[in-house]
Amino acid sequence: MTAPPHEARPPGAGRALPDTQRGMRRRNLARVLHAVSAEGSLSRAAVAARIGLTRAAVSTLVDELIRWGLLEELGPERPGRVGRPGSALAVSGRGPAGIGAEIGVDHLAVCAVDLRGAVRARAVRHTANRGRAPGPVVGELTELVRHVVAEAEREALRPAGLAVAVPGLVARDGRTVVRAPNLDWHDTDLAPLLPADWPLTVDNEANFGALAELWLGAGTPRDFLHVSAEIGIGAAVVVDGGLLRGTRGFAGELGHVPVRPDGPPCPCGGRGCLEQYAGEEAVLRAAGLAPREDPVGLLAGRAEQGDASVRAALRDAGTALGIALTGAANLLDPETVVLGGALAGLSPWLLPSLETELRDRTAGPPCPVTVSGLGSEGPLLGAAHSVIRGVLDDPAAVVHG
Amino acid sequence: MTAPPHEARPPGAGRALPDTQRGMRRRNLARVLHAVSAEGSLSRAAVAARIGLTRAAVSTLVDELIRWGLLEELGPERPGRVGRPGSALAVSGRGPAGIGAEIGVDHLAVCAVDLRGAVRARAVRHTANRGRAPGPVVGELTELVRHVVAEAEREALRPAGLAVAVPGLVARDGRTVVRAPNLDWHDTDLAPLLPADWPLTVDNEANFGALAELWLGAGTPRDFLHVSAEIGIGAAVVVDGGLLRGTRGFAGELGHVPVRPDGPPCPCGGRGCLEQYAGEEAVLRAAGLAPREDPVGLLAGRAEQGDASVRAALRDAGTALGIALTGAANLLDPETVVLGGALAGLSPWLLPSLETELRDRTAGPPCPVTVSGLGSEGPLLGAAHSVIRGVLDDPAAVVHG
Repeated sequence: MTAPPHEARPPGAGRALPDTQRGMRRRNLARVLHAVSAEGSLSRAAVAARIGLTRAAVSTLVDELIRWGLLEELGPERPGRVGRPGSALAVSGRGPAGIGAEIGVDHLAVCAVDLRGAVRARAVRHTANRGRAPGPVVGELTELVRHVVAEAEREALRPAGLAVAVPGLVARDGRTVVRAPNLDWHDTDLAPLLPADWPLTVDNEANFGALAELWLGAGTPRDFLHVSAEIGIGAAVVVDGGLLRGTRGFAGELGHVPVRPDGPPCPCGGRGCLEQYAGEEAVLRAAGLAPREDPVGLLAGRAEQGDASVRAALRDAGTALGIALTGAANLLDPETVVLGGALAGLSPWLLPSLETELRDRTAGPPCPVTVSGLGSEGPLLGAAHSVIRGVLDDPAAVVHG
Repeated sequence: MTAPPHEARPPGAGRALPDTQRGMRRRNLARVLHAVSAEGSLSRAAVAARIGLTRAAVSTLVDELIRWGLLEELGPERPGRVGRPGSALAVSGRGPAGIGAEIGVDHLAVCAVDLRGAVRARAVRHTANRGRAPGPVVGELTELVRHVVAEAEREALRPAGLAVAVPGLVARDGRTVVRAPNLDWHDTDLAPLLPADWPLTVDNEANFGALAELWLGAGTPRDFLHVSAEIGIGAAVVVDGGLLRGTRGFAGELGHVPVRPDGPPCPCGGRGCLEQYAGEEAVLRAAGLAPREDPVGLLAGRAEQGDASVRAALRDAGTALGIALTGAANLLDPETVVLGGALAGLSPWLLPSLETELRDRTAGPPCPVTVSGLGSEGPLLGAAHSVIRGVLDDPAAVVHG
């Protein structure tokens, strides 16, 4: 009756494929593709051993995946092995591509990632999007998407989906930006503004950043809290390898956790929210600096040079983060906290005070804090890879819809 | 590519039964049993329609469940229907029983619940357990368990498992109490102290309380935060109908979320934790009352009579709860917060200030707060029902192990 510590779910199970013969076949196709993808290349026999199906069953599945252009044969394995030489399999570098896009406050970015995880095309444009209407911004993004897709198609890739990261709260419909304060967008359905050529997902940039950390980070656990900052402070909660989204899709609003309940008022209506101490604007203000472009570069540069007021501002931001993260760690018991986005670049000056708070306020060992290696690339990569994951999790859907 | 709002998983899928023919059969047995259980009684044809299998397939599964003593036939349905009369099925009231047990700071309790969810035997003993060693306490609990089991067996029930609720943090092994400050137990493996006759699960009382709310509460959603209080303050996070346990099994420690970071020191090592404002002892202290038995009854009685200092203490506790819950709601985006345990009885005096904080500190509509109807019975019922759920989720395991 004792539940196992982590109830492992097979790849593809997240999609809740129907529990029928056909559903089982679809899940097994996903298992084969995941197994080859995880290893880079693998023989049919090795796939069979890994996923616990017979060699014959695996061969049928592999043939199907080759026919669909998702797997390819690399040619016979090097000789010297016992038995009939097997042909090594690899996921195709010419099949489906994931198109990731990012709407930032001061930039737009798009990339195409192939099934192997390689970025095959990329475009970035610096534009001041704050206060611009959604139409023109998404129009400009669409130009970049068309450009990247054309480049990908020249390399025999075909887009399997488009995923767009936005700096705001997104409804669980996966298309409506409910609130993006730093763009001043409210209840904006992005679907009619984007090309209808491919399946679309819109999500919060912190969520895509956390998924990138989960899929691409070195040694990232399956339970962690990912905290990032651009203008606001965003967080994403990953539980057992999946995002905790919340009822409305708004989970992870760490920026509005009260840190000092009688502190300065926040535009959210509250007082003393974390964002009032550790958001970019709050840190600039505390350091006596005016808002400007690339605040992270400015703060990191000044801190590096030993600027006492910048260092004090970052130390105080670290303290506020430590207080908010103590509460979050008590509620969620994550394996680690990962600092991503702008926080990664500022971590040398944030971490000491942050870790002091966590340690002093925790009975037993405090939650470890690590720094993301992906930094500001996370959301864009996470978006593109979410499409690729969709293909790996249910390859039959790409072919049959 | 857009993910559905709630990725529904079939009953039994939580156990990750192997994705094979046999696994599929086991999941279908669970579906049949769940369908009948949910409706009270159902014909074979109605089961088939509900779970989307053929009438023939369902009949084979039903026959198996009847042979195992998990389903029974109620006799032919009332005439007048078209076609051959079907026999209505019901889950058995004489098959497996769930044995729930609770170790409280001032009491021990045990009950037996049948597959239909009825409490069939029950025993409670008031004892002061604070500071007592685990051996004698669990010895006394075992006496009660044997007594309740004997009573259940006289009614042709057979225990399918024992689930024990404790007021402390339990490791993910489901048997070790890592820390129960109000009992003064540390790293105590309860398994060797309890009868080995049945599968055992030990869990935090807040977790079992939340599960009871999920399974037995009227209209409880599948995403909520359950907050209860005895001596400490416990919470449990339910996401998509399952408990969020955390890496070590410690998730839900709302009592140590910092509310006022420079507030009074807490035994956990922190300062200004929620428990310092809204724990029973803190509320008694703020009201100028000495610690004593049944503090909730005392506080509720005095508040009812209009005692100003008690009302002020409860109002301030509500404010502190509101601050901590604002943070929790921002992080988790639950559909509701449910006040259970002692907080349910005190809710008339806690709720006004609690809801004011939530409303004033939230952009958009605040998270709704409801009061549990189960009160202090929740953990015991949740424990017993967790065993019953285990049977419904994988009936074959009860028979074949």
